[in-house]
Amino acid sequence: MPQTITIENILTAQQLIGNYVKATPVVESSLLNQLLGHQIIFKVECMQRTGSFKLRGASHMLAQLKKQGKLPKQILANSSGNHAQAVALAARLFGVQAKIFSTKSISAVKAAATQYYGAELLLFASREEADEQVELAAQHPDAVWVPPFNHPYIIAGQGTAALEALQQIGPVDGVFAPCGGGGLLSGTYIASRALCPTAEVVGAEPLAANDGANSLREGKIIRLKQAPDTLADGAATPAVGSYTFPILQQLDGFYEVDEGKIAYWTQWLQHLLKIHVEPTSAMSMEAVVHWLKNKTEKQKVLVILSGGNIDQQKMLKIWQNDYLQQLPSLPPDLKS
Amino acid sequence: MPQTITIENILTAQQLIGNYVKATPVVESSLLNQLLGHQIIFKVECMQRTGSFKLRGASHMLAQLKKQGKLPKQILANSSGNHAQAVALAARLFGVQAKIFSTKSISAVKAAATQYYGAELLLFASREEADEQVELAAQHPDAVWVPPFNHPYIIAGQGTAALEALQQIGPVDGVFAPCGGGGLLSGTYIASRALCPTAEVVGAEPLAANDGANSLREGKIIRLKQAPDTLADGAATPAVGSYTFPILQQLDGFYEVDEGKIAYWTQWLQHLLKIHVEPTSAMSMEAVVHWLKNKTEKQKVLVILSGGNIDQQKMLKIWQNDYLQQLPSLPPDLKS
Repeated sequence: MPQTITIENILTAQQLIGNYVKATPVVESSLLNQLLGHQIIFKVECMQRTGSFKLRGASHMLAQLKKQGKLPKQILANSSGNHAQAVALAARLFGVQAKIFSTKSISAVKAAATQYYGAELLLFASREEADEQVELAAQHPDAVWVPPFNHPYIIAGQGTAALEALQQIGPVDGVFAPCGGGGLLSGTYIASRALCPTAEVVGAEPLAANDGANSLREGKIIRLKQAPDTLADGAATPAVGSYTFPILQQLDGFYEVDEGKIAYWTQWLQHLLKIHVEPTSAMSMEAVVHWLKNKTEKQKVLVILSGGNIDQQKMLKIWQNDYLQQLPSLPPDLKS
Repeated sequence: MPQTITIENILTAQQLIGNYVKATPVVESSLLNQLLGHQIIFKVECMQRTGSFKLRGASHMLAQLKKQGKLPKQILANSSGNHAQAVALAARLFGVQAKIFSTKSISAVKAAATQYYGAELLLFASREEADEQVELAAQHPDAVWVPPFNHPYIIAGQGTAALEALQQIGPVDGVFAPCGGGGLLSGTYIASRALCPTAEVVGAEPLAANDGANSLREGKIIRLKQAPDTLADGAATPAVGSYTFPILQQLDGFYEVDEGKIAYWTQWLQHLLKIHVEPTSAMSMEAVVHWLKNKTEKQKVLVILSGGNIDQQKMLKIWQNDYLQQLPSLPPDLKS
């Protein structure tokens, strides 16, 4: 297992997972491009199997274990979200059992999807209890824990989304991805730096769950003090990890996005792209428009749309106010 | 102008509009296929330029006029919805002016899109007034009215969606499309009968705007007595037309769908396909599951998803209840 993750690790991951993941499309909106005066290209991991990029990391970890003859009988994961479904499908694809340690508050639709892929779902009263129990279960010799982000194989797997996108669209000026635990963003950084060294790589995080921004400011990993309340549930992770943090420290920019702007961009991306984009993914657009206002030349930007799994309560919250009344534009302080 | 529309007219339309419309993708959901035990393939006109199939008919009409050396200075349309945007873009693509006669209740986002394409938007107090005014304006020698559905060129243009889909996926057992004025459904019928004579072609309509079903029952065109209240605004047309009705009479089935089921399938298709499907499009799925319950062999079904333009108020209504708690299945009376 590599301690420093390189583009070679991501290229290897791409080869290993080719039969298990979809090559997802890239799309753009001519109206959005006209309104902003730049070219914004979206990598649509919403269309990935299980509805998010998470299958890339999970299937890469299993492919590596298989290659090393270490495929366990059972894999374990603690998640109530996109990672649970990804691990469940990865297990089925590699012919192993999956046990998902989740909480009783998991939404019915996510529970159904996890079970549809054949995984056993264990429900606990709290996230802490689920985390404790998965740790205990992982001590069994026939079981392997698939962590959600803080592992070189996971990071390299997630990096294949940006790698694939840059292979599809060629060089860009900026690359944007959301930050939860930092797995996707770290992989995106490594792939982008290698394929397109002059591109700036920028992260986005909910202001309501800004452990990443705080950690970058303090120069050490800071945990959230309590469970955050944010539309961007894929970026609500309490802390970044020991593998991801040093990579995140090399980013060219990092933006904290308030809940109103997260809802705003979710509405607009769903409307403009006709894609069921989740808030965690749409959030990056607020970083894009702030980053763009310093640019005098027309920029070509890649935005990694991480996923499209949204429960009913969240859809109601997203659409509570009518943000479609306010057309997208660059932030006002640049307007002449 | 043909009085009887044939597959040759649709093939001609396909050739003429090839440079103006997108070839849209077809997608399916493995979970939905497993739950229903059949193969459901979706033609995604949500991804068409302007967000709906309507550009096919509008651009076909202009292409025909151009071919005949009759391209006017100005084209006119009365619509507050998908047809308005389609006519606006078609005008720009053919280098003519467009005037859209709409009502003051048009949503801001649809008004903005129509104007973005360069059309002049005229707002009236009522739909009746807009319709009267467009009729007057159409008497001008330099202007041509582009009707929303009841015209052979429009019907042939709309038929290219099903034609293109059947070229993409080969023969099927059933083809489903929604019915407003019947332009899309009529074109779908003609294309499907020709390319795939054994396929049944079936329409779906909101129960709350069931002028089509009433007309088919009575054997003559029946108008809605008042403006309907339905999520499926694309199918709220007060009556089918003189060209579409005789074609609709040849359909193999026609289903009326209640508002709860329209919301149910809109939620599920957005969730499963990760596409921003509008209620008018999702409605067809209720017809599909009722049609499927009589089938003993595995069926391959094509569903034309007509568009993806949804304003904020409609999104709130769609997501008011949590239908994602109830997994899709065939109607209960078939369950063993």
